[in-house]
Amino acid sequence: MRDIYHEHLDEILVEVERMTHVVSTAVRRSTNALLTADLGTAEEVIAADAQLDVAGETVEGKIFELMALQAPVAIELRMLVAALRMVADLERMGDLAAHIAKITRLRYPAAAIPDELQGVIEDMGRVAQRMVDQAGDVIKTKDVSAAQRIEATDDQMDKLRRSQFRQMMDASWPHGVEVAVDLALLGRYYERIADHAVSMAQRIIFLVTGEMPAAQ
Amino acid sequence: MRDIYHEHLDEILVEVERMTHVVSTAVRRSTNALLTADLGTAEEVIAADAQLDVAGETVEGKIFELMALQAPVAIELRMLVAALRMVADLERMGDLAAHIAKITRLRYPAAAIPDELQGVIEDMGRVAQRMVDQAGDVIKTKDVSAAQRIEATDDQMDKLRRSQFRQMMDASWPHGVEVAVDLALLGRYYERIADHAVSMAQRIIFLVTGEMPAAQ
Repeated sequence: MRDIYHEHLDEILVEVERMTHVVSTAVRRSTNALLTADLGTAEEVIAADAQLDVAGETVEGKIFELMALQAPVAIELRMLVAALRMVADLERMGDLAAHIAKITRLRYPAAAIPDELQGVIEDMGRVAQRMVDQAGDVIKTKDVSAAQRIEATDDQMDKLRRSQFRQMMDASWPHGVEVAVDLALLGRYYERIADHAVSMAQRIIFLVTGEMPAAQ
Repeated sequence: MRDIYHEHLDEILVEVERMTHVVSTAVRRSTNALLTADLGTAEEVIAADAQLDVAGETVEGKIFELMALQAPVAIELRMLVAALRMVADLERMGDLAAHIAKITRLRYPAAAIPDELQGVIEDMGRVAQRMVDQAGDVIKTKDVSAAQRIEATDDQMDKLRRSQFRQMMDASWPHGVEVAVDLALLGRYYERIADHAVSMAQRIIFLVTGEMPAAQ
């Protein structure tokens, strides 16, 4: 039987994993809101971000408490520090989903994304959400090769971003500056969500192997 | 006389403060390179970012070592966790300065910023650099009211970003999509550098007062 200390440690990772579900939902809903100019959903994503921050602070509080009470060393210390960083990653990912929702709100009742550009945004949203889900799985399974696969998924995000830039820089771009600026920022937000998922995967790899994968 | 443990703790904050100088230089030089289409300086900023990461990892290693060997509690634990987060902030700020430099490189030999738009970028660079410098001072002095002033400086960044958006969204915008996309991303990078400086200030306020200022 595990002692109370180790039960508390396990609980923390469970709560971090639970945060990945909240972020995954936020990414999916903010993308849907963007593609359908759905102000109600956008507002809900923005409001949910504050709840995610509260959840993050609660987990951080528990981590600090364990650090202070148990003075963990070696693997437990590494785990708690990794958890602290993953909570920070997830809070940031929630902010980015809220930024996506804010672009929907800013352009409402118009749609921010013209029909013929929805494909790339839809793909970016799907890839970002998949990476968040993968990060959640990796927290649960501690599966190093699954963690490494998140980086492979990230390559898809890079490709999408490059394809988006090519579209915008085309001399025949018909959508004007406002759409281009929105798309550039949206692309950046999705890319950063993906980057944070990769960081989380790297923290788990470090936790399991003791070795930090090469910096992105 | 302070014991070795507390000397090590002090040293860590000195090294974090030293990183703020490196970041301040990177922000200044990346802005200059951008405004003068100076590829050599841009390349140097990009190369220096890798050195900053190495410096950050070294400080992180020392923090882990102190955590593991000394099992710090209360204020010392809080300080080490704050230092860990400030190192992450500074590494990220260095990345953002390198992103600015990469836009210079991408557009070279052309200048990324048309002459009449240089003013706002120059101001953003100056405000960002000032905030990094202020964060460095606050690490040294632990002056809570100086830390709070960083947020006031951040208001200037918000104003600059709004003014930049107004310029780009003006119907008579003559510079095309490419310049608008570059400016939108540059504005975002400077804004994020400023955000991280605010986060650092908040961590110092938390360290000194035990209370976290309201989230940005």
